[in-house]
Amino acid sequence: MKIFNTDIAIVGAGPCGLFSVFEAGLLGLKCHLIDSLPVAGGQLSEIYPKKPIYDIPGIPEILAGDLIKNLMLQIAPFNPSFTLGETVIGLSKKEDGKFELETNQNSVIRSKVVAIAGGLGNFEPRKPQIENLIQYENCGVDYIIKDPEKYRNKKVVISGGGDSALDWAIYLTEVANQVTLIHRRTGFRGAPESVSKVMRLVQQKKIDLITNAEVNKLIGNSHLTNIEIKIDNSETISKSLDFFIPLFGLVPKLGPIATWGLNIDKQAIEVNTLDYSTNSKGIFAIGDINTYPGKLKLILCGFHEATLMVQSAYRIIHEGKDPSFKYTTVTGIKGIN
Amino acid sequence: MKIFNTDIAIVGAGPCGLFSVFEAGLLGLKCHLIDSLPVAGGQLSEIYPKKPIYDIPGIPEILAGDLIKNLMLQIAPFNPSFTLGETVIGLSKKEDGKFELETNQNSVIRSKVVAIAGGLGNFEPRKPQIENLIQYENCGVDYIIKDPEKYRNKKVVISGGGDSALDWAIYLTEVANQVTLIHRRTGFRGAPESVSKVMRLVQQKKIDLITNAEVNKLIGNSHLTNIEIKIDNSETISKSLDFFIPLFGLVPKLGPIATWGLNIDKQAIEVNTLDYSTNSKGIFAIGDINTYPGKLKLILCGFHEATLMVQSAYRIIHEGKDPSFKYTTVTGIKGIN
Repeated sequence: MKIFNTDIAIVGAGPCGLFSVFEAGLLGLKCHLIDSLPVAGGQLSEIYPKKPIYDIPGIPEILAGDLIKNLMLQIAPFNPSFTLGETVIGLSKKEDGKFELETNQNSVIRSKVVAIAGGLGNFEPRKPQIENLIQYENCGVDYIIKDPEKYRNKKVVISGGGDSALDWAIYLTEVANQVTLIHRRTGFRGAPESVSKVMRLVQQKKIDLITNAEVNKLIGNSHLTNIEIKIDNSETISKSLDFFIPLFGLVPKLGPIATWGLNIDKQAIEVNTLDYSTNSKGIFAIGDINTYPGKLKLILCGFHEATLMVQSAYRIIHEGKDPSFKYTTVTGIKGIN
Repeated sequence: MKIFNTDIAIVGAGPCGLFSVFEAGLLGLKCHLIDSLPVAGGQLSEIYPKKPIYDIPGIPEILAGDLIKNLMLQIAPFNPSFTLGETVIGLSKKEDGKFELETNQNSVIRSKVVAIAGGLGNFEPRKPQIENLIQYENCGVDYIIKDPEKYRNKKVVISGGGDSALDWAIYLTEVANQVTLIHRRTGFRGAPESVSKVMRLVQQKKIDLITNAEVNKLIGNSHLTNIEIKIDNSETISKSLDFFIPLFGLVPKLGPIATWGLNIDKQAIEVNTLDYSTNSKGIFAIGDINTYPGKLKLILCGFHEATLMVQSAYRIIHEGKDPSFKYTTVTGIKGIN
């Protein structure tokens, strides 16, 4: 067990979490950031590092990855500590009034203040609407392919029309005994070269392609053994199989944060705009993960939220004392303590 | 009379006023900016263009003047129009529901929405505490020297200990018949070379210096003729003169904005944090000029305020229609119209 003591534990190392370190540092507060991704930057590092952003005030154009680099430089004087590649799974309040965050790899972070800057949260698979689907999860239904060897010499049915469905169908022809690809439409959303490759494998009878079709029933005792496929919205055929793998993309989910007793509205944490505090004293939420009347999911708004948040964090950490307000043009970037 | 029609009239061309142009532009709205300074940038251009700023998110260090240059580049695609070097003196609402702003040089700006981004407001002279002071304003008492020729061959008394008092005392020895400099203390706050120069002129009997002294009474019928000076907090002497010029620096004042019927608290305009609207529909206030619970006078907060403000401005301009929300990483920097 690795234990970290800090002033503000920040869940999420995206741009808003990172900038909190700067504003906290000016007030002499230390921060520890936790992120399930192995690098800082959140979506900007993971999803669109090479895309230009135009709406960061004072920066006419910057690549998302470079914005994160700049933020890392900006916060470096305040020496934040990081736990990366670990997911926060638990939050509890201890007798001394401090929070304790626990990760899936046994790290523990202790602090008087927790700032949730989790962006869109964790990403979870989008599930098709099929009765009894959940009953067969891990008993024949997989939403994510972790180890392709699981499917060696098995009969596999993949459902979906995007890159993930196409690429795995192609890959599994080398591993599985039988690969069936089911898609609701005739056209695919995936890359043209992947579509061509699938069509070639269909001609070679290595992939059985069924279009204008949907899986509408799962059958089996403890483990999935058969599915019913509805074609052209009329005919229904039955098919035996070992694994059904619906690959309809990922949707963001709050994950364990949803169980912390915070007020939630549509997958976002409700905060007030005084200091972006939640209904639980000492817990704040900033950036894309929060909601309030008029909320816009913009990075520049998260920067403002982070700045007001640390003012109240200071009062909690210093038991009611107000932070002194100074301009960096006057004082530079030293903390006030 | 120059007439401008626009969507949003922005009073003040500092960083928050400028960034409003960008966010308004993304929604297809046009802006016209008015500022009493002859250049854009507000305090950043006028007071500290060569000072570094460290707390603009994503920019570890930038000179204030360069931040303004970057903002001008960022808003250039949306072609804002400007009225610079003119002061807004009047606001009225017309029968068609539009506002009309009038400047001291007869420019008129018509718009459905007014955004006040006036920073600290106009700067006004700090006045000494002397009974009857106001009675002699423009009748022997001047706070600002506009034309030194006014004092040719006159007896002038300057009061103050900063650069302005020192520099004008030096200058007026060449113009006035008699120059007296009165200062509350013995040491001066001004530049050492100015202090040396004054001391040389005192030795040459071109300046009559009275320290540890304060003017505490003004005497005269329609025009000022005499003052009483209290020295060392005991002795009082009388002195005849033509002009008394207290030079104690400038303090920011709201100016005519204070008469527009907006709720004001301590020289700042009260707004709500939903959209930074004032109590008057269609009038918003953003940046250092507004106040709300938790307000911090930081540029980065003004950027957020500008962004939320234009959302509501859009609804007013388009009669209730909601703006569509798009990311610049996806759409680039074209307006939505």
